[in-house]
Order: sequence, then C-alpha cells, then structure tokens
Amino acid sequence: MPKQSLHIRSLPELTDFDTWYSNLVEAAEMAEFGPVDGTMTVRPYGFAVWDRIKSELSARITASGVPDAYFPLLIPSSYMRKVPGLEKRASELAIVTRAGGEELADPAIIRFTSETLINEAFSRWITSVHDLPFKVNQWANVVRWETHTSLFMRTNEFLWQEGHTAHRTRAEAHEFARTIQRDVYESVLERVLAIPVLAGIKSPQQRSGTSGHNTFTCEAITGDGRALQMATSVEGEQTYAKAFGVRYTTPEGTVETPWMTAWGTSTRLIGGLIMAHGDVDGLRLPPALAPVQAVIIPTNIDEVSSARRIEDDLRSQLIRCHVDVRFDLSFEQRSRNWQTKGVPLRLEVGAEDANFSQVAIVHRLFGGWREIVAKEELTRLIGEALIDEQNSMLDSARAERDSRIKPATTVEETIGIASEGWARVPWAVLAESGEEQLARFGLSVRCLQRLDGSVPEDGAESDLVAFVARSH
Amino acid sequence: MPKQSLHIRSLPELTDFDTWYSNLVEAAEMAEFGPVDGTMTVRPYGFAVWDRIKSELSARITASGVPDAYFPLLIPSSYMRKVPGLEKRASELAIVTRAGGEELADPAIIRFTSETLINEAFSRWITSVHDLPFKVNQWANVVRWETHTSLFMRTNEFLWQEGHTAHRTRAEAHEFARTIQRDVYESVLERVLAIPVLAGIKSPQQRSGTSGHNTFTCEAITGDGRALQMATSVEGEQTYAKAFGVRYTTPEGTVETPWMTAWGTSTRLIGGLIMAHGDVDGLRLPPALAPVQAVIIPTNIDEVSSARRIEDDLRSQLIRCHVDVRFDLSFEQRSRNWQTKGVPLRLEVGAEDANFSQVAIVHRLFGGWREIVAKEELTRLIGEALIDEQNSMLDSARAERDSRIKPATTVEETIGIASEGWARVPWAVLAESGEEQLARFGLSVRCLQRLDGSVPEDGAESDLVAFVARSH
Repeated sequence: MPKQSLHIRSLPELTDFDTWYSNLVEAAEMAEFGPVDGTMTVRPYGFAVWDRIKSELSARITASGVPDAYFPLLIPSSYMRKVPGLEKRASELAIVTRAGGEELADPAIIRFTSETLINEAFSRWITSVHDLPFKVNQWANVVRWETHTSLFMRTNEFLWQEGHTAHRTRAEAHEFARTIQRDVYESVLERVLAIPVLAGIKSPQQRSGTSGHNTFTCEAITGDGRALQMATSVEGEQTYAKAFGVRYTTPEGTVETPWMTAWGTSTRLIGGLIMAHGDVDGLRLPPALAPVQAVIIPTNIDEVSSARRIEDDLRSQLIRCHVDVRFDLSFEQRSRNWQTKGVPLRLEVGAEDANFSQVAIVHRLFGGWREIVAKEELTRLIGEALIDEQNSMLDSARAERDSRIKPATTVEETIGIASEGWARVPWAVLAESGEEQLARFGLSVRCLQRLDGSVPEDGAESDLVAFVARSH
Repeated sequence: MPKQSLHIRSLPELTDFDTWYSNLVEAAEMAEFGPVDGTMTVRPYGFAVWDRIKSELSARITASGVPDAYFPLLIPSSYMRKVPGLEKRASELAIVTRAGGEELADPAIIRFTSETLINEAFSRWITSVHDLPFKVNQWANVVRWETHTSLFMRTNEFLWQEGHTAHRTRAEAHEFARTIQRDVYESVLERVLAIPVLAGIKSPQQRSGTSGHNTFTCEAITGDGRALQMATSVEGEQTYAKAFGVRYTTPEGTVETPWMTAWGTSTRLIGGLIMAHGDVDGLRLPPALAPVQAVIIPTNIDEVSSARRIEDDLRSQLIRCHVDVRFDLSFEQRSRNWQTKGVPLRLEVGAEDANFSQVAIVHRLFGGWREIVAKEELTRLIGEALIDEQNSMLDSARAERDSRIKPATTVEETIGIASEGWARVPWAVLAESGEEQLARFGLSVRCLQRLDGSVPEDGAESDLVAFVARSH
C-alpha cells in the first residue's frame, strides 16, 4: 500500500468543541441521556466499544494476578462516618430511603466507590501473612450526582473498574501501583486506544482522596488542547484499612496493618477516545479497538453474495467485519453512517466493477483516501492496512501532543502558555504556591515527571518537571 | 482410566438441606451477605464461577445476533404507572428520594428490570421495518426487596441478564423465544453446568408478567427434590411496546406495533448449580465450568518446581490449573479446602514418589477416588478425565432426576407424589382448577410438555403433560 501522511484532523473551533462532541456522541449512536436527569444509556455501538476496552483492560488486570469480585450496590450510610474526610462527598450521593414498601431505619447510599465495602470485607478475608498480597477488582456501575453533565465525561451514573490490593510493605504497594499504571492503563491507552499519555505522579494538591499518598496518573490531551485524566493508581494508603480494621498476623505473631493500592478507570475513556481522534466527519476508531474494523457495503442487492464471500475471507483472518444490507438507504447514506461511526475501512463492492475483480477500499483514518484493489489482494491488504493505520494513529497523536507542549520558566509564562495549550515547567518554579496561582486561571498541574520523562518514585524528588493545562 | 460408576452423592436430610446449602456457600468462599440487609457480596471464587457462566451464555447470545447495551440504573417512578399491572410490584422496589444533596421532585426507582427503559428506547430507535428484528441484551445488577433471603437464591440485589427483541410478526417472536430457550439456556445448563432441565411452557397461572403470552422455561430438580426455575423466555408480548409507543412503518406506509420477546437468567443459576451437584463434602463443579479444573498440591516446598512443571504442561493444553503453595497450612487442610470448593481433580505431588515419576490424582466427582499415574501419562489422562467426568455428571444427574419423577393420574395422586418428589400428570386432569388445589399444598405446575417430551407451541395444545413439584 502506498504510504501517505496521516490525514490532519479537521476540528471545530474551541468554542464549538463541546457542541461538536455532544453531536458526535449522538450521531455515532454511542450513547444518550436516560429519563432520570444526567443518567446515561450506552447504545449497542457505544457498548461494543466499551466491551472491547473492558476486555483489553481485564486481560491485563488478570495477568497482574487480580481476580474479579462483586460487592453490593448499597452501602450503609453509617460507613460515611468511619473514614476521615469522606463525609465531604455527601453532595455527590444518591440515597435510598424506602425499600420493600417501608422506610429504611438506616438509609442506604448507592455506591460511589466500593472502597468502604471492600476494606470491610478485607478485614474478614485477610487474617494471616499468607493471605498477602490480597488483590481484587470490580467492574460495576457507580452513582455520583453531578451539576453539569456530559455523556461519557460526567454523568450521574457511569461504568467503571476499581482495583484494591493489600500488601505487607509500603514498597511492595508502591511497586504494584506503578505496575498497574504502566502494564494496564498506559499499555491499553497507547497500544489499543492509540492515545499517547503523559504518565506521571500527581502534585500534592491534585492527589486522590484525603491522605498524603502517591497518585500515579495517565493524562491525555484532547482535540481542543485540554487535559483529561484517563486513569489513576494510588499507592501507600492505610486510611481505609485502619478505618475498617484490616490487619494480619505475621509469622512472629505481631499484628500489622497492610499497605493498600486503589486504582480505577471508567467509561470516561470513551469520551477521551472521541476527543483524541474524532474529526468533523465523526468518530475515528483505532483498528485494534474498533468493534467493526472493515464494513462491506454492496452497492445493490446483486452484490450481496460477493460481499458475503469477502466477509468469509476476512473472518477467517479474524478481521472483525460487517455487511451493510440496508438497501432502503442509499449507498451514500450507508457510507456516511459508517464514516460517522469511525469504522477504519469501508469496502465498496460493485462500485468499480460489476464482475467483481476489483474492490474500492476507503480509509477513514487517511481522510477518506480511496484506493482500488484487485480481489485476490484484498484480504492481505486489509490485514496490513489495519496494523499500519493503528501505528500511524498513535504516531500522529503523539506528534500532535508534542506540538502542543511548550516550555515555560516562570509562573507567568506558564499561565500564558497553558491558557492555549500545555506548559512544561520546572516543578521548583511552581511548587504549591504556584499551583494556587494557576488555579485562579482555571489551570492545574496535570502531572510531574522526571527530566527524562520517566515517572518519579514520589513528589519529593528533586529536578521534577510539571505539566500544566486546563482540564476537562 | 478405569471406569467406575459415579459417586452417589451424600446429602443431608431434607430438614437440614437449607442449612447445608448456606454453610456450603460460606465454606466454599462463594458469597456472603453485605452490610445492608439481604445484599450479597460475590467473593472472588464465586465470581469466577459466575464469570464462566456469563461467558458461556454471552457467547450463545451473541451467536443469536443479540448485541449488549447498558441502560440506566434509575427509572422515573412515573414509569410504573405506564404499564398496566406494574404497580403491584411496588413492595419489591428500592427508591431513591435524595440525590446531589437535594430531595428529588420525582423519586427514582432502582431497576428491578429494565423493561420500561428498554421499550422507551425502542420507541426512538425503531422507526422503519429495516430496523427489525431489533435485539438487545443487558448484563446488570437489579434490586428486588425480599422478605426471606438466601445467597444466590433470593437476595435484595442480584446480577442477571435480560434480553429484549422486537419482531415484525408474532410467529417470528415465538420462534426467537424458543431459540433462546433451547440454544442459549438449555445448552448452557446441560452442556456446561451438567444440569438436566425439563424444558417446557408455563401453565397460565405460572406465566411471567401480566399479559397472556407464552413463557418458555427451563426447570431443574435440586438435591432435595424441589424445583428451581433456571431461566425463562417470554414470547408474543405487546404490553410494554404499546405502553411506550414502540411502532414501525411498513414499506406500504402503515404503522404497526412490533411483537416482543423478553428473556433472562441470573446469579440464581449458581444456587441451582450448588443444589444440583453439591454433597456433604462441599461443592462439585462440572469440569467445563470449573474456574480451576485441576489443582496441583505439592506436599512440601521441595516439590514446588515439579508442581510448576506440571502446571506448564497442563496450561499448554488449555487446562485451567492452580498450584497451592500455602505451606503454612497442612497438606490435609489444603486438600480439604479444594474438595469443599469442588475442584474436579486434585494432583498430589510428592506424596507417592519423591523422585517425581508418579503423581496421585484424586477425583472429586468420583467420591475422592485416588489413582496413581506415571508422570508421562499425566497430561493425557487429565484431559480425558475432564471430558469423561463432565459427561458422567450429566448422565448421573439425569438418572437421579428421572428416578424422582413418578406418574400420576388424579389430582389427589399428584399431591401425594409431588409432596416428596415430582409428579407427571396429564394436563387435562389438572387444568386451572387443579392448579388451585395444588397451591393449597405448596405445589405448582412447573411446566407443560408434549407426550414425547418436546416443547409445545402453546398451552392450548391437546394431550399435554404437566410436571408438578414444590419449588424453591
């Protein structure tokens, strides 16, 4: 296949970006709002995307030795008082006051995380040092009431995954939190979603939760130049363990509190995916992720048997494909529908040659580049194009990201640069007082890295670099 | 491997059956109650079983052309008034009255099924005949408040799957509901869970929901001789479609209401699995389902490298295995733990021969039969045993089931037989008045079949046979 530079994405102006995003989510049949304010219905096409993201994450979580479990939806409201600082989340909660035809004596909270229930379970499941490390992950729905909602980005209910592990030492917990950040999140984001991320550590102000522990993060840059936190992995925490009395006995007979990790990501990844790759024509899905990698569109009903033969050939090569036989829609309507849905390759059968010796391939990722190929070359060329375009998407996204990041040497310069893109500034220049100044301009430190781009052990290392941007 | 007749399961007396069941669920680390009354935590081992059941169901649901989607947890309470008869379920509901720090103007109901939301979505997603058949499935948690709870059997929250499809004709909906009963539910129950089911149609009194439609069911017999409804598939329904205005335009320009199917099964299958196969020593898992098919137990730490080599060999044959290295527990404690958890095969490494030319295989399904095999034969013998024992389990369960079913010719005889087992009686003998008599003795018609054991098209066929039992 002739190489050509990846299509430069065409995006609406910044002011229209949010409208473009919400229109795209609807037009691509990804999701819509439910009848209860701010809730989300994930439509079959959007769910197929989530299911593939989930499979890729799940395979890596399992490979890290973490089994799944399921904890109840409902949490006693009294648990909110067990963990210092947790009560300040009251304004996010949805509360069940009536069940089974009666008022509940103790109202139940719908889970916003399962961290309380999981630590309560750990207090019974973990007794001896041989139980450690104890690892568990949950895929579930959570409810957090929002004031401003946006599909996939901020909804009152969303789907997510939360992992919790207990370790003998803080160092082991630290290492495991890093492993999850790198081998699960960074791996899926870059290799599958083709989203280059800045992997780093959160600054003290941006840490998760209430205790002073390290939060590892993967930060993406969206099409409008803002930052989106894609996943976090938190290390070295004992707050919940102490609140719920998680303890184990050592071989020497002493009783110790284990060190925890907590890590999660959610359907928000789909928001990040759309914002990272979408263009004015709709979604663009990386081939490794796309539920349909190649859609086969026969021009008319006489071409269906040819289309089915191509489908069989592609399926035998494990290429995910679909034949669109909605002949009450025009060829153009069907083509535009799959363009909007971001399917990497469209195969037009019958448009070029009624005798079916040639097929047209339209490359969504290369801005609709159309090539005519011989039938006997088709399966091989499609297999190659899918690999090629996956790599090109990541390269292109990385080049776009790098072009947005500019160095700064003072707080003022940081504010100027980060108001339009991303600033890279020595952390020593900002420190916590600088962070407060940034906040007044709607800017935040997204993460800290070492000079060589690696992830620091903790925020106290010298010579760290801060990345500053506006966030979604 | 020398054949021997399958171990006759040893079970507690009927009066102790419920205690045996709840003790087993706890001892096998399958599940436990959560802190909010009647909610359930599915522990990692129990969840691994559910995950495998889910995979097997999901593969078949996908093969039937049904994609997954996700509908919101919360339903406007006003929707309860849209469907005739739905309000009588009020006593099952959990209601959110406060969210985001404020009282909700319209309280939200936690889904007990998503049938209302799905039909509301169908009313927008389905417009033309080319949208039909429209098929969707959801895996989710649902909340139904119960007065008496039992883990997996009846809990205030459980996990389930519900499928909904819309068709042009009632005949097509009928056919699809039958397909799901046979190709999804009956297939997974018999081939994977090794539970023989009576597949039939519900009598009018036992139908799902409020309208007069056919309900196809799969009924199992549990270890105490009672009946357990494992899955249902409902055909020919328009109540919800009409309530939510689901309509499509035909090529002729007329506007029609489609015919629906609705079908589901839940974590209750795990309750059925335990009750169908468990014995006084604990759970017994069919090899096709077991998350761990063979557990490798080295007698001491010197045998670990031998155990790991066996693990590698078995893994290369796609046999699911695990090495138990908890050496702070005795060999007997570890063996008993896996026996309770129902792992089909235990491999004792080092017990017979320190030089590792022989390994002992203990067969959980054959009542702990222990055989000594040469190392080079091990992988082949284990592969054969897993297939063999899967088949034996189903055969044995079928023989046990058939021995419990006895023919009856009058209502009185039916009551006598069904009080201790299952009665098979001509439906004409019972009819609806007979059903009312049975109800007074705590008995019900579980399903109707034709004389040849096949599933009738509907309950109005002549010469049907009714199966009567006590149900869980």
